[in-house]
Amino acid sequence: MKLASLQSGGRDGRLVVVNRELSQAVAVPEIAHTLQQAMDQWSLAEPRLQDVYRKLQAGQCGDAFALKVEDLASPFPRGYQFLDGSVYLHHMEKARKARGAAMPNNYKTEPLMYQGLSDRYCGPREPMRLPGEEFDADYEAEVAVVLDDVPMGTNAEQARKHIKLVMLLNDYTLRALTKTELPKGFGFMQAKPTSSFSPVAVTPDELGEAWDGFKLSLPLISEVNGRRMGQPNAGVDMFFTYPDLIAHAARTRSLGAGTIIGAGSVSNQDERSGFGCIAEARIHEELAYGKAQTPFFRFGDVVRIEMFDARGQSIFGAIEQSIEAA
Amino acid sequence: MKLASLQSGGRDGRLVVVNRELSQAVAVPEIAHTLQQAMDQWSLAEPRLQDVYRKLQAGQCGDAFALKVEDLASPFPRGYQFLDGSVYLHHMEKARKARGAAMPNNYKTEPLMYQGLSDRYCGPREPMRLPGEEFDADYEAEVAVVLDDVPMGTNAEQARKHIKLVMLLNDYTLRALTKTELPKGFGFMQAKPTSSFSPVAVTPDELGEAWDGFKLSLPLISEVNGRRMGQPNAGVDMFFTYPDLIAHAARTRSLGAGTIIGAGSVSNQDERSGFGCIAEARIHEELAYGKAQTPFFRFGDVVRIEMFDARGQSIFGAIEQSIEAA
Repeated sequence: MKLASLQSGGRDGRLVVVNRELSQAVAVPEIAHTLQQAMDQWSLAEPRLQDVYRKLQAGQCGDAFALKVEDLASPFPRGYQFLDGSVYLHHMEKARKARGAAMPNNYKTEPLMYQGLSDRYCGPREPMRLPGEEFDADYEAEVAVVLDDVPMGTNAEQARKHIKLVMLLNDYTLRALTKTELPKGFGFMQAKPTSSFSPVAVTPDELGEAWDGFKLSLPLISEVNGRRMGQPNAGVDMFFTYPDLIAHAARTRSLGAGTIIGAGSVSNQDERSGFGCIAEARIHEELAYGKAQTPFFRFGDVVRIEMFDARGQSIFGAIEQSIEAA
Repeated sequence: MKLASLQSGGRDGRLVVVNRELSQAVAVPEIAHTLQQAMDQWSLAEPRLQDVYRKLQAGQCGDAFALKVEDLASPFPRGYQFLDGSVYLHHMEKARKARGAAMPNNYKTEPLMYQGLSDRYCGPREPMRLPGEEFDADYEAEVAVVLDDVPMGTNAEQARKHIKLVMLLNDYTLRALTKTELPKGFGFMQAKPTSSFSPVAVTPDELGEAWDGFKLSLPLISEVNGRRMGQPNAGVDMFFTYPDLIAHAARTRSLGAGTIIGAGSVSNQDERSGFGCIAEARIHEELAYGKAQTPFFRFGDVVRIEMFDARGQSIFGAIEQSIEAA
């Protein structure tokens, strides 16, 4: 099942069920007005939404309309919680090397994770607005999961069943600000502005064998201004899995329905897979050619992130955003 | 005007207007079902809510009922954003001394602030549940403000007008976990569980001369198991003000309506004002007597936080919570 939110629904969007080919949609106000409302009562809403999805695929939804991705807001235009891990250690090693920071002592015994902003997410085709070009703005191509209510103390084994939806995520990072902000010890504030998610969120059953309950094993493609940056496989070199991240987050608190958990910028040890952010490309260039060549974002640049299934169908639709002045 | 949320309204509570003496309340579904709904359209809702408040004070609300604080949820049972600063430098110096950490280089040029969890806030009388007693659990007595929509790039002068509500805040902190978590550089995850807010949120006009648009100059009283911990004045020794914190947060992003901003554990240079958390009391005891005596929380302990106006009226009602096993 694929779900999205129309911009026309106001601050929280209007929930629609989308067909597999991302060409048709249908509103479901009789089930839930917003995706958050569906998450709040997922066990009741999910079978009813799946029923609509089956009818939509079968061409039996009289209210279905042609979907324009440009009309979509983020699946969650705003949310109650966004937590982002950093489990592709290859990325962390490179990112820290770039800003001259050491790896944390305990990085292999517990996942690194931060509380991200959730009060507004950029739409998948909405311009990403920044107050200036001087921040070394970068993207990070990631895969995120959405949870129903997770009780405090849930362990990794129990955590699996709380993963209800999967999305792509562009976790924008202002590299120039991480250098001054992270040493303060309180995490990201100005260095991680609004993130964006893919046009649709999908249920794990939609991913077939690529989803094993722990990770999504497919290439995550990113491009900047039409130039391929990389296609690292999100299921490779993942040191901690989504259930590990959920258990880590839930150790001292419950997690509310609709909590989104990212796993960090996807990065493979095999550098033939390319990069999932500009910073890694730059570090590679420095080592290989003595000088970084790929620039960080300038206004007018366009970043695109997408993932395809084995038959070449775009699973989530593409995140495609221009970087513009606020 | 004083506003609160009844538990009976589900995940987001049911908005009620509360009288000045905190004894009467009236639901206002014709204006907004929840406090978040009111924040989403504050310029329209606020005059209508103020009108109800005037009638309630005048005894002209036929639907008014006797308020039991025990029936209240947090004013925002869940929210889209909670940001907490640390502007009472005396507290920061002591907290860092206690865990053997240095002060950040830039702590006097830009405020220290973290993205806190917002997917669930404890009710003002709800037990605070923790998975164990071994985390050196502590409270931090704070004052927080609630904002309407703040555009990216808002400066401190402009920020003042976005402060719509004021609340008390208990920012629970698991001291044992800050020692391992903060050196990782990604901020608080497990070390800052759910926070709680006062029974009611009030508009700044309710605070009279104690609120000057920048800070709230009244003693913030905290007690543990009935023992007075301190009454530091929240308007004294505040190195950065609320507008400074808002401007810092809004530098690279907008802030959504309902964003809550705390200013950190209130602490005065004058130690006769006592303490606003257990950690400070322990550091004082170590220096004065060679040994910390005040224990961190054990299950069954009760923490109470309250603030009174010049006439002795409790402004926000008391946060009073027992610490219990999850």
